[in-house]
Amino acid sequence: MAAATLARRLGRSGVLPLCCRLPAWDRATRPPPSPLQPPGLPLAPCRSFSNNKIQVELDESSGVAMMKFKSPPVNSLSLEFLTEFSISLEKLENNKACRGVIITSALPKIFSSGLDITEMCGKSLEHYTEFWRAVQEMWLRLYGSNMVTVAAVNGSSPAGGCLVALSCDYRIMAENPKFSIGLNEAQLGIVAPFWFKDTFVNVVGHRIAERSLQLGSLHPAPEALKLGLVDELVPEEKLMEKAAAVMAQWLALPDHARQLTKTMMRKAVLDRLVAHREDDIKNFISFVSKESIQKSLRMYMEMLKKRKS
Amino acid sequence: MAAATLARRLGRSGVLPLCCRLPAWDRATRPPPSPLQPPGLPLAPCRSFSNNKIQVELDESSGVAMMKFKSPPVNSLSLEFLTEFSISLEKLENNKACRGVIITSALPKIFSSGLDITEMCGKSLEHYTEFWRAVQEMWLRLYGSNMVTVAAVNGSSPAGGCLVALSCDYRIMAENPKFSIGLNEAQLGIVAPFWFKDTFVNVVGHRIAERSLQLGSLHPAPEALKLGLVDELVPEEKLMEKAAAVMAQWLALPDHARQLTKTMMRKAVLDRLVAHREDDIKNFISFVSKESIQKSLRMYMEMLKKRKS
Amino acid sequence: MAAATLARRLGRSGVLPLCCRLPAWDRATRPPPSPLQPPGLPLAPCRSFSNNKIQVELDESSGVAMMKFKSPPVNSLSLEFLTEFSISLEKLENNKACRGVIITSALPKIFSSGLDITEMCGKSLEHYTEFWRAVQEMWLRLYGSNMVTVAAVNGSSPAGGCLVALSCDYRIMAENPKFSIGLNEAQLGIVAPFWFKDTFVNVVGHRIAERSLQLGSLHPAPEALKLGLVDELVPEEKLMEKAAAVMAQWLALPDHARQLTKTMMRKAVLDRLVAHREDDIKNFISFVSKESIQKSLRMYMEMLKKRKS
Repeated sequence: MAAATLARRLGRSGVLPLCCRLPAWDRATRPPPSPLQPPGLPLAPCRSFSNNKIQVELDESSGVAMMKFKSPPVNSLSLEFLTEFSISLEKLENNKACRGVIITSALPKIFSSGLDITEMCGKSLEHYTEFWRAVQEMWLRLYGSNMVTVAAVNGSSPAGGCLVALSCDYRIMAENPKFSIGLNEAQLGIVAPFWFKDTFVNVVGHRIAERSLQLGSLHPAPEALKLGLVDELVPEEKLMEKAAAVMAQWLALPDHARQLTKTMMRKAVLDRLVAHREDDIKNFISFVSKESIQKSLRMYMEMLKKRKS
Repeated sequence: MAAATLARRLGRSGVLPLCCRLPAWDRATRPPPSPLQPPGLPLAPCRSFSNNKIQVELDESSGVAMMKFKSPPVNSLSLEFLTEFSISLEKLENNKACRGVIITSALPKIFSSGLDITEMCGKSLEHYTEFWRAVQEMWLRLYGSNMVTVAAVNGSSPAGGCLVALSCDYRIMAENPKFSIGLNEAQLGIVAPFWFKDTFVNVVGHRIAERSLQLGSLHPAPEALKLGLVDELVPEEKLMEKAAAVMAQWLALPDHARQLTKTMMRKAVLDRLVAHREDDIKNFISFVSKESIQKSLRMYMEMLKKRKS
Repeated sequence: MAAATLARRLGRSGVLPLCCRLPAWDRATRPPPSPLQPPGLPLAPCRSFSNNKIQVELDESSGVAMMKFKSPPVNSLSLEFLTEFSISLEKLENNKACRGVIITSALPKIFSSGLDITEMCGKSLEHYTEFWRAVQEMWLRLYGSNMVTVAAVNGSSPAGGCLVALSCDYRIMAENPKFSIGLNEAQLGIVAPFWFKDTFVNVVGHRIAERSLQLGSLHPAPEALKLGLVDELVPEEKLMEKAAAVMAQWLALPDHARQLTKTMMRKAVLDRLVAHREDDIKNFISFVSKESIQKSLRMYMEMLKKRKS
């Protein structure tokens, strides 16, 4: 147990924790939390990286960033959203004060609805290329992040939204059977890309992935827990508290060893997309630029517009 | 939800379902079920492909074929049986009216007893080659089928019989603890081929497969459910009703996306046999043509004959 | 069932068991257990291979060896221990009278504490090379053993101790929540080598391994059972009896088919270390010979010494 306590104190210093009296904390230069600071009101150490669609706050005292999707109505993954997402991840990754990030939604009932269909409709080949590259980029950064990533899934999370959750280190979902999660692409006549599938298989295993992907299932929260798609359910009002507790547990480990272990587990799947990135883009373009697909997309969007009004 | 309902209506048309008012059903040329047709007596749309050992009926109104193994006493997979099986699968695969197949046994208490030992005894090298190629062919067609395949396991299913069930998309087994299922080759001193093993691992995972294959376990139905070897158990009298319901659920998905997803999940394992098919045949021949093996096979068959009389 | 009974009688003869009246037992030359021998006191058939740190007794009547770790205080895997372990395994492997081995600890409360830190501290590069090669050698022999290997985990089993258990065919653990097991390297700032990870993934699957390795979790016995890290729990006083019963079940199978099946399941992971053995040694040396690591190891050992006195 002494070793564990020690490890907790070591933080990022990582590889040196076999001893108890090391000059441990290698980020001693950052200011300690002020003892005068009132609880619940972190003044100095909280830095905001918020931008248009994603709100980011870093609590430098704990090393934990909170990332909230805030792109009404349903946090769909548009090119702009994805770009902001990747930039935010990169900023946090490069910030030595940040060791972990909790990802959640600032909107009620929805975590993220997945890829934005309007990005796939009536645009140029250049646009499709740029869009798909942004989807890949987001996943490469998130699945390969050196930070501890915890998804606090406080609403439904279909398709690309599910991918975001699956790419984190840990998934906590609000205990609400009305919220569902899954890679439901097949329901829409679309095939999930191979790296969505790889990520899914790494979480739930081959058999559950095969069945769920073929049926395009959206699993209500209790079923998602049973299948291992999420790690635990908590009442919605306790979600953030639980996410913080889980984050603290993961941050108790020395960063360096944890990061190398994570890389060891995920490298094969990350490398596979890197090796086939251009083919994957070509596949997407050839699919999306079919006249038949374009026609259905246009009609689908019109239907959505009418429903709103 | 609108999208899901839509997808259900789209059927084979597959990739175009993002819109609600598509000229959906791409097989409109087939005759609709007659409103005058009495329920339970499908006259026109039911076509029979039955042959010697397997009875096949296709209900064109639902797009579902029923395939019943009818080769007494135990549906053993002889060369003739395997050839009929592959031909039936090919016919259905090429029939645009067929989208799914339910596989079951017409005999009581047994689904299939596995490979026919008489095909391995006292025959020529040419015969062994032909036989093993037929085993491979059956699996390549079944595991790689574009149709939805549901196994209604209404009896015991050892060795090759288990492989047939494992190769389907979904397995429902009669809730009878006297029925068992498993790759029990090791009990007989035989090693399951690598592609039997690959299929098994894809269903139950590495650990369960390692233990079950080494012990040559035959799992009673309740245990098979617990291990994930079958997906659900139902009372025997409800088996076909349940199989039809599951089939309807899978057929609610657009065929094209479902098929591509299935291929994505199974391709690696299918490709592996295709790449090593001739080596696999050589392995089988070298095993089966050993004098020691031939001697034991002859004595085993004599024992079976005596038992009968 | 006749076939199964037969198989049980066939033992090592393996590939010939399809018939019932074979001249079965191919080791008939060994002396049968004497009917005059008092129960519980196996005189003639029990041979001892014990050496300094590991006690080995082979009961030739059952074909089962008992291997007890007896290196106080905590059965740490020193170079000497590992060498004796590998030699013992090799002796048993080459002894036709031995078909299975039960591995347990002769010390209370601890199965094995894992790699011996003193072997990594203040030694020459040659020593580090020799030590790491011995760790690899032990695993290659144990994970690739042709014998049935059953771990009777009668105490805590962290890190390398857990690897020993994971490398067996079956794991039974004492039902004591104070005993824990896991690959907790990350807690100590160390990364488990890739072949520790491969062995772990083959037992518990990718997701559980990813989480457990990153957190460096030590799982109390009941949790270890739930995760599939061990196969069953029994009260400590019944552990050896249960291990013997499990061994008898596995030995009921013909050896040859079981061995080939085991090889088929484990070969890919074994081959991976064989292919990268020298790189793996270089990695270890480059890690352990860092001055910072050496410093922490020295201080850690001083701390342990002070704690003892």
